[in-house]
Amino acid sequence: MMSGLGFLVAARQCEIDELEQLAGTIALAQALGELVHQLQRERGLSNLFVGSGGAGFGPQCLAARQDTDRAIAAAREHFDPLPGATGYPGSRARLFSRIAYALHGLDALAGLRQRLDQLALDVDAVTAAYCKLIASLLSVVFDATDNAADPEVSRLLLAYFNFVQGKEYAGQERAAGAAAYASGRCDARRQQQLLTLIDAQEECLQTFGGFADARGLASWQAAQDGLRLAELERLRRIVCTAPADGRLDPALSMTWFEHCTARIDAMKQVENALGEQLRERCEQSVAAARRDLHAHQAVLQKLVSQADAPSPPGEAAAPLAAFFEREEQAASDGAGRAGAPAYGPRMEREILAMLREQARRLQATSDELATVRAALNERKVIERAKGLLMAHRQLSEEAAYRMLRQTAMEQNRRLVDVAESVLALSSYLGGQAPAGP
Amino acid sequence: MMSGLGFLVAARQCEIDELEQLAGTIALAQALGELVHQLQRERGLSNLFVGSGGAGFGPQCLAARQDTDRAIAAAREHFDPLPGATGYPGSRARLFSRIAYALHGLDALAGLRQRLDQLALDVDAVTAAYCKLIASLLSVVFDATDNAADPEVSRLLLAYFNFVQGKEYAGQERAAGAAAYASGRCDARRQQQLLTLIDAQEECLQTFGGFADARGLASWQAAQDGLRLAELERLRRIVCTAPADGRLDPALSMTWFEHCTARIDAMKQVENALGEQLRERCEQSVAAARRDLHAHQAVLQKLVSQADAPSPPGEAAAPLAAFFEREEQAASDGAGRAGAPAYGPRMEREILAMLREQARRLQATSDELATVRAALNERKVIERAKGLLMAHRQLSEEAAYRMLRQTAMEQNRRLVDVAESVLALSSYLGGQAPAGP
Repeated sequence: MMSGLGFLVAARQCEIDELEQLAGTIALAQALGELVHQLQRERGLSNLFVGSGGAGFGPQCLAARQDTDRAIAAAREHFDPLPGATGYPGSRARLFSRIAYALHGLDALAGLRQRLDQLALDVDAVTAAYCKLIASLLSVVFDATDNAADPEVSRLLLAYFNFVQGKEYAGQERAAGAAAYASGRCDARRQQQLLTLIDAQEECLQTFGGFADARGLASWQAAQDGLRLAELERLRRIVCTAPADGRLDPALSMTWFEHCTARIDAMKQVENALGEQLRERCEQSVAAARRDLHAHQAVLQKLVSQADAPSPPGEAAAPLAAFFEREEQAASDGAGRAGAPAYGPRMEREILAMLREQARRLQATSDELATVRAALNERKVIERAKGLLMAHRQLSEEAAYRMLRQTAMEQNRRLVDVAESVLALSSYLGGQAPAGP
Repeated sequence: MMSGLGFLVAARQCEIDELEQLAGTIALAQALGELVHQLQRERGLSNLFVGSGGAGFGPQCLAARQDTDRAIAAAREHFDPLPGATGYPGSRARLFSRIAYALHGLDALAGLRQRLDQLALDVDAVTAAYCKLIASLLSVVFDATDNAADPEVSRLLLAYFNFVQGKEYAGQERAAGAAAYASGRCDARRQQQLLTLIDAQEECLQTFGGFADARGLASWQAAQDGLRLAELERLRRIVCTAPADGRLDPALSMTWFEHCTARIDAMKQVENALGEQLRERCEQSVAAARRDLHAHQAVLQKLVSQADAPSPPGEAAAPLAAFFEREEQAASDGAGRAGAPAYGPRMEREILAMLREQARRLQATSDELATVRAALNERKVIERAKGLLMAHRQLSEEAAYRMLRQTAMEQNRRLVDVAESVLALSSYLGGQAPAGP
């Protein structure tokens, strides 16, 4: 029969288990970050290859594919043990369903490359395909973030996810701008797309800023080069303000690509630092929880052995157990009461203090997690509203995002509030919910 | 190496596992509901015993204790396997910590009874002690409710929890009213306590009404006896409006007790029906999920064997995989395209359709759960605000609740909004967070 003390120890052990699972989640997120980065490179080079009509960038493409394939193999090594492992916090079904979708996309990559080699796709189709694959991987990272049980790690994971997502928008901006410069012109639709991607990037980086710690913010600060940024802004201005019938200098295509790439590579360095920091933070939490458990185990061992000992026969009636006392009372005479048997009540008080301390800590954890999750939920609401608009209005993701943003600006409301209104009125839109994870 | 299909199956299996764990949670909640009921009876009879100065109700008390002890043994049988079991959704640490606290209280019960037999406690102290023990058990039920992964079961569990909690307030009302009638007078403090308990009951029953299904509402409807209710209301009016120096008829003490008991027993019948209904609902979900898995396994088996077969050599270049198509496109020509190889793309489309269907279902589940959880969070916010006021203002639970309610009425705001303001201003109150789970 499990005693209350047994459950006290079991609860502590569970905390350690949950933190260790979190370490696995972080390793998975890092591996997926790496894979996303390789796919971003492959996407960029594939665009240049297709844009050049197959005349250039062939060898670079092949090399990038090999790097991607290595990253895929590494990611799969993180996926494989998951179904056998126990105790993933949150819905394993949802995580597995997202992984299934992402793996399905990775399986389709060979076919995409084949079509690409045959020059059977245009630059926009290539970009869209890689974006979809990357999005499916990022949704796995997001799901892992969503389920972290440690508030501080959860905050850092949220910062990490937003940084990686922001970097992906930077990658999409690179592709869109490169396509514009290479074609020598930029129409209004493309300009709108670029502005949306710049906005989305900034929003991600803002969320990152809100959840990163001082060290994370410092790495991002250090990675930004003022001159390089100024040049990027200049190139952005040129492409975004070009008149519909005006000409862009195609020679700027490579300059644009290189600038964006330097930025993305710098972001990758920051991403690596954030991942490393996350890993360290989680290790520290595990170590602290272990120390804590060991420190308490001695006390618990003593308490258990005392609890097992039979009460001396003929002992005076037990005083009312500390459990039943009002808390002020328990606190004020915690050292034992006059006339009470020597160790009985004291022992109970120790146990009770430990129970209360544990409950307090777990409650604080839940409360902090609720704060972090609120931020995660905002993203989910926006994603769902976007998906709804995409499905019902046949809009692209960008167009749906733009529509929400526009409404938010016009009505001077937060993006998430507009998204909530859209969801609340979803039945007015008719049809069904959006597909895809 | 796990394939996407492997994860698709694993996700379905996880859904079934989660539902089966939920069945265990429901059985635990039922056992705890039973134990709470026995403790409520024991509390009522103990009050009468102490109130009579030990002259009456001794044998009934002893019989009630035996029933309680049987219910404790049954509850422990549900606790024991938990630490060994895997995959409890949500924080096992928090659940175990709550169980540890509750078990600690159950261990202290023997001491409480001993003191009671010695008439060393007054009626209020007896009531308070049993209330605390019951609250610790209800917090375990609440935690289990908080973690249910199936939205419909989660709604029913929330209805169940609120009903059981409402019944507990009815039990506390019985105790408070009995004390008043037995003493022959009812001061303003006691009247306030009674009104608060009546309010709290009604609030629980309202929440119950918002989450129960038609069948649950019907059992509650059927259990209410108009005449009995009218008599209870008459007795409530008498005790709550008695002038401070007025006399209450002590003969009404037994009438009050019996009326309240009849009401509580009727509520227990409803609770049992709700529990049974929950169990059935969960079994149905498990059966449906199993049927679903079997139906898909045939398809999956076929798909897996096809996926494993090597592509015929010299096959024409694959078309762009369905994964990379826009969704409208995929939906509009889901039956395969002209010129595409016979089964390759169709198979992929089938897989993709299954993946999307699963993702859609899991997403819908998450969204529904979010709605139910919002209601759970409201309770948590109110509980925390109450705890904060209790700790900082040295208030009883009732007084803290009354303070929140009063403010809500004066400011015409919802209780939860007032509670949120209290938490937001917690630093203004100084001191530390409330103790106890």
